[in-house]
Amino acid sequence: MKIAFIGFGGVARAFARMLISRRWQLQERYGLSWRVTAIATANHGCVSSNSGLDLDEVLERLERNATLAGIADSTNCGDAASLIEKCKADILFETTPLNPETGEPAASYLRQALSRRINAVTANKGPIAFAYRELSQLAARHGAQFRFEGTVMDGAPVFNMVESCLPGDRVLEFRGVLNSTTNYILTGMEEGRPYEACLEEARGLGIVEANPDYDLDGHDAAVKAVALANVLMGADARPQNVERKGIRGITSDDLKSAAGAGLGIRLIARAKAADGRTIIRVGPERVPVGSPMGSLRGTSNALTIKTELMGELTLIEANPGIDQTAYALLSDMIIVHSRLDRTGGTH
Amino acid sequence: MKIAFIGFGGVARAFARMLISRRWQLQERYGLSWRVTAIATANHGCVSSNSGLDLDEVLERLERNATLAGIADSTNCGDAASLIEKCKADILFETTPLNPETGEPAASYLRQALSRRINAVTANKGPIAFAYRELSQLAARHGAQFRFEGTVMDGAPVFNMVESCLPGDRVLEFRGVLNSTTNYILTGMEEGRPYEACLEEARGLGIVEANPDYDLDGHDAAVKAVALANVLMGADARPQNVERKGIRGITSDDLKSAAGAGLGIRLIARAKAADGRTIIRVGPERVPVGSPMGSLRGTSNALTIKTELMGELTLIEANPGIDQTAYALLSDMIIVHSRLDRTGGTH
Repeated sequence: MKIAFIGFGGVARAFARMLISRRWQLQERYGLSWRVTAIATANHGCVSSNSGLDLDEVLERLERNATLAGIADSTNCGDAASLIEKCKADILFETTPLNPETGEPAASYLRQALSRRINAVTANKGPIAFAYRELSQLAARHGAQFRFEGTVMDGAPVFNMVESCLPGDRVLEFRGVLNSTTNYILTGMEEGRPYEACLEEARGLGIVEANPDYDLDGHDAAVKAVALANVLMGADARPQNVERKGIRGITSDDLKSAAGAGLGIRLIARAKAADGRTIIRVGPERVPVGSPMGSLRGTSNALTIKTELMGELTLIEANPGIDQTAYALLSDMIIVHSRLDRTGGTH
Repeated sequence: MKIAFIGFGGVARAFARMLISRRWQLQERYGLSWRVTAIATANHGCVSSNSGLDLDEVLERLERNATLAGIADSTNCGDAASLIEKCKADILFETTPLNPETGEPAASYLRQALSRRINAVTANKGPIAFAYRELSQLAARHGAQFRFEGTVMDGAPVFNMVESCLPGDRVLEFRGVLNSTTNYILTGMEEGRPYEACLEEARGLGIVEANPDYDLDGHDAAVKAVALANVLMGADARPQNVERKGIRGITSDDLKSAAGAGLGIRLIARAKAADGRTIIRVGPERVPVGSPMGSLRGTSNALTIKTELMGELTLIEANPGIDQTAYALLSDMIIVHSRLDRTGGTH
């Protein structure tokens, strides 16, 4: 598989290291061999190479903040858009920084790739929240695959489980703790540490958005809830449709008094089908300590779905880090590859 | 798809009702149409029919405890073994009562069906605990599919999730609450009800094994843990290899004193790879109330797997009933059908 990267930050680099260390296993177990034929970065150049870029050298250059321009056998490509236009790739990994108000430029890159029949994988929730229906229809029309497991709860298979493991069933509603920063802060405060200290610790873990309001006011959870509702429940919702409240104003005293009653406070995202619409809301809720949501500490996330036939299932991801998001890209890649085999091979 | 049933008790009947009520959706959504061409019961006859048995009439007869012999367009078949030998079926559902010491007669029925290239689905954990490797190799050799999602945690996709949604990853260890009866008793006693009353309530729910020792002494949990280890971790273990302790001797006072320390007691099954072997044990453990296992009440089950790339994932099934086991058969059937399409259609 010829691989193109649009965006090559922390997640893509962790994924690249996974690809390198598992080259042999992927070949052995799935008959999947790969080379990287294009990389577009914001500040370190855009390069392509039909014979394949040396991924070790790419990582080494970026580690010392050097440009990719001039790397062996490569051609410079201008920018991401022209790279997608010209690159020969079987699969494109889109992990650019996101404008959470619009889902751009990620959605446009994905449109462009899918229109060129390039299979596309994204770790950006924006395109799923703002343009899922359009992008999935575009993919179907062009016979390309579009996958996005890493957009919600990292590599925990929230989308793939419903797609592959609950056939014939239907998601009626869900609730979840989807934002790590706010959960880290709430459970840190529960343990007696002050708000500011918890926020600083979360920053140290690299999980806080560039603009922390985006986490604290529930925007991130809302966008993820919309992504889930669009994919799992066939909604065509947008983040602005979400009734949203963040965790500001929750005090250590609130958490202490809740704890005294055997309760924790968690930022919960909910969606429910009602009268042909999907109602989505995000806000802090009191939950029993002895419940799946109450059991989440630190950066852990969880999603409970209620389905017509299987009833209530909960998936919990314990203390995820960047490697779990990178794994989402790997699992999507293996799934894309297995379905290529079925429909006729790579380009 | 031509369907054969070996065993037609509560689970098979619930599944049959699901098939009837979803006939149209299965056709519409998956292009899956079906008819039942053979049913073997222990006490109500064994019948087959190439044109298809009237499933509504089958259910109605069994409801009033009448024999299936003489039902329209049917032939009598002797017993289950001769029915498998002669029936024309694309898929066989095996749900006979199990001898938990041997996995029989379920394993033999499955062997026979797979050898005849009939795709087989079982809800019996015995064959997976006693003969998984042999049966899966037999299936591969004859080009038949073998599925068993309902054997552990009902229709919660513990096997299918690892198979389909965690490609390229590897299960290193797991722990789980896998037996509903003991969890119902322990959490009932936690709430202050006496042991005997809780056991009676569990009996009323229809979840207690014919011989309750099988639940109480941890045999059921051990067999399920072995099934999980064999499939998810490539072990070739047997129930007699499990270090096993049940819940006898746990008193209300034990539960009260644990609760005072923020702990619950749960019957936990664990498996871990060590030195090329898989160590499996079952026993009561103290777990924090505010942990996924501690959050389980009543008949709820959970499985936590630790994998190489995705870290720790937990799947919780809330308060399952017989319909969740029936759904396992439905999901396995849809998966079998989707893969038939790929490799060349029904018989």
